[in-house]
Amino acid sequence: MRDSVEIGPGKVAQRGYHLSDVAIVPSRRTRDVDDVSTSWQLDAYQFQIPCVAHPSDATMSPATAIALGRAGGLGVLNAEGLWTRYEDPSKLLAELSELSEDAQVTRRLQEVYSEPIVPTLVGERIRELREAGVTVAVRVSPQHTLALAPVVLDAGVDLLVVQGTIVSAEHVSTNDEPLNLKEFIADLDLPVIVGGCTNYQTALHLMRTGAAGVIVGVGADEWSTTDRVLGIRVPMATAIADAAAARRDYLDETGGRYVHLIADGDVETSGDIAKALGCGADAVMLGEPLSLAAGAPAGGAWWHSAASHPKLPRGAFGAGEEPLGSLEQLLYGPADRPDGTMNLFGGLRRAMAKCGYRDLKEFQKVGLVIDEG
Amino acid sequence: MRDSVEIGPGKVAQRGYHLSDVAIVPSRRTRDVDDVSTSWQLDAYQFQIPCVAHPSDATMSPATAIALGRAGGLGVLNAEGLWTRYEDPSKLLAELSELSEDAQVTRRLQEVYSEPIVPTLVGERIRELREAGVTVAVRVSPQHTLALAPVVLDAGVDLLVVQGTIVSAEHVSTNDEPLNLKEFIADLDLPVIVGGCTNYQTALHLMRTGAAGVIVGVGADEWSTTDRVLGIRVPMATAIADAAAARRDYLDETGGRYVHLIADGDVETSGDIAKALGCGADAVMLGEPLSLAAGAPAGGAWWHSAASHPKLPRGAFGAGEEPLGSLEQLLYGPADRPDGTMNLFGGLRRAMAKCGYRDLKEFQKVGLVIDEG
Amino acid sequence: MRDSVEIGPGKVAQRGYHLSDVAIVPSRRTRDVDDVSTSWQLDAYQFQIPCVAHPSDATMSPATAIALGRAGGLGVLNAEGLWTRYEDPSKLLAELSELSEDAQVTRRLQEVYSEPIVPTLVGERIRELREAGVTVAVRVSPQHTLALAPVVLDAGVDLLVVQGTIVSAEHVSTNDEPLNLKEFIADLDLPVIVGGCTNYQTALHLMRTGAAGVIVGVGADEWSTTDRVLGIRVPMATAIADAAAARRDYLDETGGRYVHLIADGDVETSGDIAKALGCGADAVMLGEPLSLAAGAPAGGAWWHSAASHPKLPRGAFGAGEEPLGSLEQLLYGPADRPDGTMNLFGGLRRAMAKCGYRDLKEFQKVGLVIDEG
Amino acid sequence: MRDSVEIGPGKVAQRGYHLSDVAIVPSRRTRDVDDVSTSWQLDAYQFQIPCVAHPSDATMSPATAIALGRAGGLGVLNAEGLWTRYEDPSKLLAELSELSEDAQVTRRLQEVYSEPIVPTLVGERIRELREAGVTVAVRVSPQHTLALAPVVLDAGVDLLVVQGTIVSAEHVSTNDEPLNLKEFIADLDLPVIVGGCTNYQTALHLMRTGAAGVIVGVGADEWSTTDRVLGIRVPMATAIADAAAARRDYLDETGGRYVHLIADGDVETSGDIAKALGCGADAVMLGEPLSLAAGAPAGGAWWHSAASHPKLPRGAFGAGEEPLGSLEQLLYGPADRPDGTMNLFGGLRRAMAKCGYRDLKEFQKVGLVIDEG
Repeated sequence: MRDSVEIGPGKVAQRGYHLSDVAIVPSRRTRDVDDVSTSWQLDAYQFQIPCVAHPSDATMSPATAIALGRAGGLGVLNAEGLWTRYEDPSKLLAELSELSEDAQVTRRLQEVYSEPIVPTLVGERIRELREAGVTVAVRVSPQHTLALAPVVLDAGVDLLVVQGTIVSAEHVSTNDEPLNLKEFIADLDLPVIVGGCTNYQTALHLMRTGAAGVIVGVGADEWSTTDRVLGIRVPMATAIADAAAARRDYLDETGGRYVHLIADGDVETSGDIAKALGCGADAVMLGEPLSLAAGAPAGGAWWHSAASHPKLPRGAFGAGEEPLGSLEQLLYGPADRPDGTMNLFGGLRRAMAKCGYRDLKEFQKVGLVIDEG
Repeated sequence: MRDSVEIGPGKVAQRGYHLSDVAIVPSRRTRDVDDVSTSWQLDAYQFQIPCVAHPSDATMSPATAIALGRAGGLGVLNAEGLWTRYEDPSKLLAELSELSEDAQVTRRLQEVYSEPIVPTLVGERIRELREAGVTVAVRVSPQHTLALAPVVLDAGVDLLVVQGTIVSAEHVSTNDEPLNLKEFIADLDLPVIVGGCTNYQTALHLMRTGAAGVIVGVGADEWSTTDRVLGIRVPMATAIADAAAARRDYLDETGGRYVHLIADGDVETSGDIAKALGCGADAVMLGEPLSLAAGAPAGGAWWHSAASHPKLPRGAFGAGEEPLGSLEQLLYGPADRPDGTMNLFGGLRRAMAKCGYRDLKEFQKVGLVIDEG
Repeated sequence: MRDSVEIGPGKVAQRGYHLSDVAIVPSRRTRDVDDVSTSWQLDAYQFQIPCVAHPSDATMSPATAIALGRAGGLGVLNAEGLWTRYEDPSKLLAELSELSEDAQVTRRLQEVYSEPIVPTLVGERIRELREAGVTVAVRVSPQHTLALAPVVLDAGVDLLVVQGTIVSAEHVSTNDEPLNLKEFIADLDLPVIVGGCTNYQTALHLMRTGAAGVIVGVGADEWSTTDRVLGIRVPMATAIADAAAARRDYLDETGGRYVHLIADGDVETSGDIAKALGCGADAVMLGEPLSLAAGAPAGGAWWHSAASHPKLPRGAFGAGEEPLGSLEQLLYGPADRPDGTMNLFGGLRRAMAKCGYRDLKEFQKVGLVIDEG
Repeated sequence: MRDSVEIGPGKVAQRGYHLSDVAIVPSRRTRDVDDVSTSWQLDAYQFQIPCVAHPSDATMSPATAIALGRAGGLGVLNAEGLWTRYEDPSKLLAELSELSEDAQVTRRLQEVYSEPIVPTLVGERIRELREAGVTVAVRVSPQHTLALAPVVLDAGVDLLVVQGTIVSAEHVSTNDEPLNLKEFIADLDLPVIVGGCTNYQTALHLMRTGAAGVIVGVGADEWSTTDRVLGIRVPMATAIADAAAARRDYLDETGGRYVHLIADGDVETSGDIAKALGCGADAVMLGEPLSLAAGAPAGGAWWHSAASHPKLPRGAFGAGEEPLGSLEQLLYGPADRPDGTMNLFGGLRRAMAKCGYRDLKEFQKVGLVIDEG
């Protein structure tokens, strides 16, 4: 049944499917859209929608992280982004919002991010979020987790996001003492989200570190160049379904620990959100879609964290665009365009209604069709 | 044999095929085109061609519904469209015919359709069709069926079309008394067409409501955005073949009730019509192709019903185009262009002749080849 | 092994492959290109290359049919084309060579071909070919075969080509006495080529009519619209391999009658020719590629016969283009462009050499790889 | 398991996959990028990166072959290119760098390469490389190997590359005494690289000639027209995996002779390099990517050797482009663009780190996913 292929004698590969390769098949009852709930709970934190922000400076400033929290989702601030390198990055963000797409942009990003991280700024930003009363989540890279953890924890975060392109449960290094995720998480008393990962095995290993949530995918969207640079491309429908199987097996092996899956990549429309959840995700991580909200920090421009890498940048720059509407409108409508970029969670809710499901957990069982057309 | 795929461990999906993925294979005798019949009968109503209009205001006014009926097909007026909201929508239609494709169009559609439905206008429009002597068919949405049924039935329709994007035999609601299709149909003494639906199971359930015809598909064409907004995309060849299997099983379980399948979506050319019937449909629902007939209500513009949804619009606006020819010419030729958009049913007839079939029911057995090229 | 798919319960289709889906795999020795022969013999007629002209007026005039014969291929004149409707069609051809691609072109083609066929002209054209000393082949449609046969045979053709989009061994008609191919061929004492056909069964049936050659395919190229108009699209690699299996089985059932397969469709470059033969064809029918030879009748314009159909035209018009070179150069080089459109049979010869084959019959066994990339 | 398909009854083909159809799946630990080695050893020669230059005059002059050697890769000079036909080809190269892409370019290439090879120049060029102290590799075609070998060997090469589009272990000729690779190689006391080849069988046969390295593929990139001209297209992931199986079997049959696989084709970015090695290659052959280095001989223009063939040219001309950076920068970064064209081997190194591998040989076992999206 599993769609595996022998590329050449002895070289076997699984066939992978993107979210665009699958579609939802309504196959039972229908339901009133008002009877459908999109609420999501991670550990002690309750959200109105299963929406986690991708921690890019293009979308997440302290202000927009707060706004997203107030709107019912989870904002995530990058502890290694512009807000912790500069006292006031607003002029830089304004400059970036004016740039157009060419090679020079990458160089400018590299320059801008070459400024060192200022630990005191990390603390300040976190306190700003904390004071706003929203759930506070901050992203650190695996490499800097040990160095930044003290200041981050001191400042009082609710959720820690340890995120790199690929994060493994076992990092090997001959130089530094590498981060041992399992020990690190065991020592904390707050929930940790880790990732990305791309298949059953890496998802299961990350679950065994004690993480509360695992990020599936590498945040690939149409601006992503991870495939061209690293040869890594993640068919998200398969990656999510794989990780969902790992979640089930881990639930069994632990006698009940449920780890949340947060799909990061391939999600640009409300239809994509519905498909990601239908494949088994608990929530989606939204990057570029949120850059189109009024008030986005970089005026509609978009870039991945890795786009500023000093030696091996990954991810094209998306030039600034006119906002589609307010953040509320992007999340909950009303939409005044029919392309799935507005009313993102209203679209999800309606998809659930048309398939007769009441809540997100049930909806993970929705029928799918494979269609590579 | 069935092409099912395990996306991830335990998550199985069927592989679906679009009409564009299949082609007809002539594999026996050939036949004179004049010996081929395209006639279709639904309940007591006889049609020269298996053609049902998709009830969009862009193509179906009272006048064009009458014209299609006189030309041998079945016109369907939307009881919830502009003609039942406005005494005279012709100025609005003229305005829409002049619009070009941008976000503003969706807003204008939302405004135009925010006007409430006037029940007396529903009756008037139906009487206009009735007086013309054609088979009278009117579309209502599942949500408004109970409210509109009295006035619709009083005015004297021949066929009632209960159509939403997705219609199920069991709608669940905690607020209103939902429509129970089975009871509703049992109480009527006129044939009802219901849909859309997308697979074997939902088709079978709709057949069991007592419907005379079931609509397969969600009316998706190149202007459709149902996939982007809801994650629902219907590979029509598969959906039709699935529903045809349900028709066969229902025929068996009832000892002889034959429910007609009307394919709605993916049908833009005469070749598509032939393929839809070859997959097992009894008739096709034509939307945008009819907007290219001279005298189309919106001057060649095209939009789906859902394109005016107040909170979650679905479906792009197609700007007005020059007509290709008269309605007669579009249906029966002569064509003066070679792209399958004219002489739609002459093309069907010739395809049947080249495969040696005499009538539509026989033609459902035609050989197909899968070709995703 | 056979790649068959259940579209829906009980509806099975074979998967079909185009020539572009396959590629040749050199897998044994290599050979000097000068040691390779591309010669082809059909019945008593010997050709330097396995090249049959598609009988379109755009490429085949009496003069170009003679030129192709002298160059080593087989010219085919359409007995129902412009040369048998007009005393001198050269002004019309000049006019067509100047037209550009739009809907009006179809109308003009319809007008031009509405002129009746003049039987005496048929005889005159054939005598012109005969006097030139080349193998004389003329195409008639199945519908007009009985009417035109006397004058065609009287004038002395060597090979008769009975060709329609789809030709079957059994045509059914309630009006006319239909052509019984088997009786018709049995009564002749010259070899007949018939087609097109699209699969094993129809190929086998046509072989059983006594034909010397069977045309596989419907002449589809990028200007073809048979799929849009009729729903018929022929994956040529599959169709040829199917017909080759029929040839083998017919050889067995007759104890040695070998019927030649002429591939008509999907062949635009030397690489395509190599693939068609590698799939099992004995020769290819070239249409549009020959329109690019200096001296092509319509100055580089291109249209299919069916493009002028009065009610259901099929096939787009390709506007006139600058010739790439002389006919000799197109067939045998030297090429001064690298895209496979020149030195068509030199390319075939080199492909055979790189795979180590000496002659066409051997080359039908070449290894193939499926690649839908 | 092996993905083979019956095109028609009795005609079986393997399904082939391109590098773009596969992606790397990180599935175990991660590793510090500084702990990863990309070093490669062929016979006695050690290289910092598994990079062999494709011997096109567009990228390999004596100067750039030396530069690549100094930078840690293997330069290869074409003994049948411009540098052995002209005393000083620099004016011609300058002229070619100014040409734009049209049919005239092919004619100009044909003219330029019609000049005969001057054996004394072959010797001179080789001595120039030798004096620079880099590993000296020269390419000869199979046809000219016997004629050129004496002068090439006299001049003192380290590695001989016998390369044609398709090279077989057994070339058949009725005219000349063909090259017997096995005897030829046995008589030499230097390592020979031969190819290209496209599948298990031809790779195995070439290994049995005693070659130290086998080239897999025909150097196809987006400028290649081998498919259009010859019908030969090589899905590289499959070809490499096939050849890797042959390498394993040959290792077994010889009790330990390890033949290196050099992938030539489909490799344009660092991601492609990672995929080629992940499929089983030991090194990659880079053509066009090196034309973008500052100081490339033809100023950024690009053509294949076969593009100048006098009768059957193959390969389109790529007009000159601005360099992306120095050769060092292209190979090792820093990159200032995110598209995988710079820091080619830094990208490989990072891909290996993200998958937890230490060296190239280990990395051949990396997990892959098939994704034809």
